Amino acid sequence: MDAPVDCVFCKIAAGEIPSLKVFDDATTFAFLDINPLADGHLLVIPRAHYAQLDEMPDDEVSRVTGHLPRLARAVVAATGAEGYNILQNNGAVSGQAVMHVHFHIIPRTGADGLGYRWNAGQYPTGRDRQMHEAIVSALQS
Amino acid sequence: MDAPVDCVFCKIAAGEIPSLKVFDDATTFAFLDINPLADGHLLVIPRAHYAQLDEMPDDEVSRVTGHLPRLARAVVAATGAEGYNILQNNGAVSGQAVMHVHFHIIPRTGADGLGYRWNAGQYPTGRDRQMHEAIVSALQS
Repeated sequence: MDAPVDCVFCKIAAGEIPSLKVFDDATTFAFLDINPLADGHLLVIPRAHYAQLDEMPDDEVSRVTGHLPRLARAVVAATGAEGYNILQNNGAVSGQAVMHVHFHIIPRTGADGLGYRWNAGQYPTGRDRQMHEAIVSALQS
Repeated sequence: MDAPVDCVFCKIAAGEIPSLKVFDDATTFAFLDINPLADGHLLVIPRAHYAQLDEMPDDEVSRVTGHLPRLARAVVAATGAEGYNILQNNGAVSGQAVMHVHFHIIPRTGADGLGYRWNAGQYPTGRDRQMHEAIVSALQS
């Protein structure tokens, strides 16, 4: 899709807005989040503009995400984090603030107060099979 | 790495523990989370056992994540969600409960009470450049 003229991540990937870049190649650009949740919080983006992951070609997702293990190892080595979250939000309702696909690498330590609100539930009887059928059907259509 | 004998996701991928599978191929297995955060909450895992993403070969990450766009589209179509989070936790401190790499696809709607606790801050002067240098250095070593 065409990039909106005001996409800040397109401009960062193009070097039109400065960033603290840690890695880039033909497809991928990785840099420090300017408003970090923790020291070393990275953003990993496709150079090309896609608003959401579901709009990206599979192979382009693969090229971007193939860099995540190495970037995660570097973040852990540099920060001494005990773990990390990979988070990629899609849609304003999900918390996505910049409408250009980005993977967060969020370093975690014990008392950081971060994390996903984990309000896990259980399916009412039969609801799980309904959802299963609906998703399988959607995959086939 | 060798799979621990008690890894529940290894057993699910092998069919030894039943699950509501929506997709699988030689590398990847996708199924409904039995304790969902929302209807249609999916888990997408490598068949092979890796505890964390940073332990996975790049190309295996790519093979697994290349399925995420299509699976996300199916979840959105089946649930009517307005958006979704892709979340992949690494280490107990991050919220990881099953020590076998898994990508959550979490459907989101406006009033679901879910989401990441977003305590964004700012780097003290110079700290961002320190982190940048440390991560770049770690990538090169």
